[in-house]
Amino acid sequence: MVGFDGDDTLWRSQEFYDQAQLDFEAIIARYVDLDSAGLRSTLLATERGNLAQYGYGVKGMILSMVEAAIDMTAGRIAAVDIRTIMDMGKDLLVHPVELLPGIADAVEQVARHHRVVLITKGDLFHQERKVAQCGLTAFQRIEVVSEKDVATYRRLLQEFGVAPEAFAMVGNSLRSDIAPVVELGGWGVYMPYHATWAHELLDGFDGAGRVVEVEGAEGICAALDRMSS
Amino acid sequence: MVGFDGDDTLWRSQEFYDQAQLDFEAIIARYVDLDSAGLRSTLLATERGNLAQYGYGVKGMILSMVEAAIDMTAGRIAAVDIRTIMDMGKDLLVHPVELLPGIADAVEQVARHHRVVLITKGDLFHQERKVAQCGLTAFQRIEVVSEKDVATYRRLLQEFGVAPEAFAMVGNSLRSDIAPVVELGGWGVYMPYHATWAHELLDGFDGAGRVVEVEGAEGICAALDRMSS
Repeated sequence: MVGFDGDDTLWRSQEFYDQAQLDFEAIIARYVDLDSAGLRSTLLATERGNLAQYGYGVKGMILSMVEAAIDMTAGRIAAVDIRTIMDMGKDLLVHPVELLPGIADAVEQVARHHRVVLITKGDLFHQERKVAQCGLTAFQRIEVVSEKDVATYRRLLQEFGVAPEAFAMVGNSLRSDIAPVVELGGWGVYMPYHATWAHELLDGFDGAGRVVEVEGAEGICAALDRMSS
Repeated sequence: MVGFDGDDTLWRSQEFYDQAQLDFEAIIARYVDLDSAGLRSTLLATERGNLAQYGYGVKGMILSMVEAAIDMTAGRIAAVDIRTIMDMGKDLLVHPVELLPGIADAVEQVARHHRVVLITKGDLFHQERKVAQCGLTAFQRIEVVSEKDVATYRRLLQEFGVAPEAFAMVGNSLRSDIAPVVELGGWGVYMPYHATWAHELLDGFDGAGRVVEVEGAEGICAALDRMSS
């Protein structure tokens, strides 16, 4: 069985968040004397502090942005600017899905030889909307999870009835897609994306010979062939 | 197999939303000349208008409250009051789970004779937190879904490998817990809660002899016995 991540593996995602971040900075810079790095690190700290309450996803990001905007401006921010931040969030939630180059073919090819499932993290409602819009129909199961850690993958593989050694995960995040699957005894196809949220970075990861890095979707099938041979 | 709803079936929920609603009204009443009914209907309209973007759950409710607060006050609301509304949301998200009277025993009793699953609607992260806190361990599967309609129950029953005629759902919402299951050919144990969100009300529902209404958790087992006999 082969699992695919959603955001930044099947479809573009992080760059829309990054753009929202830039728009947020432009609004706050009118109130406070902080450079882009300072604004960014303050927002990231707020987001990380709120993960335990909000989890991942756009709604949590927007709530964190509004909170950071109020706190960073000591309450001086105008309600109309808060409304703009909230509209950015709605735009993100309804943004049309843009598949990455070659991924539709890659999923179809993989599905000829393996059962394929989609395992994506974040907001249930938003992820289901993207799945419905993306036009990919090969997935036998679609799992939206709140966290992609060893416990989550263990539970899913049990539900699927698949041994870890017979499972490979394709994704752009070493932390969420690759490392926990390898720890369970599975395999990883690591396909880096040009933009990565700071929270998803993972230093010093060693794939123990069970991870193949590919440059794009065209490399996925060959990587899986190398694993199953 | 027997499915249990979460909010207002296993644990208290709506009354915390209702309290947040009252707190919201108290804030907005300082800015605008609207009575409680007017404030409430405006917020409900905003929430319903945002369901297609936000889905169900506390985060969407808070985003709708902030949006309604800004729009209803024509942007005059102070950032500090918006911050208060957001803190209400965080309080809701971390509120300790309070099981309803008798429900722990009822779930345990039912689990002696049937497979039991939990099917709950709303925010994935928040619902999982409540499941983890509630202390009930009998559920073989925990499904957090974005909408409880016929299509959702059909997909879940297929995944569970259970025929609709062999499935009963226990819940407090005719719209979300009972009607779609009966439409599929399954059974319903309707356990009304003293508070119901206006969006969950359903007029003119006819259970076609496949629904038993119970006053509290003590009645669940007897209701299921009547169905399987």
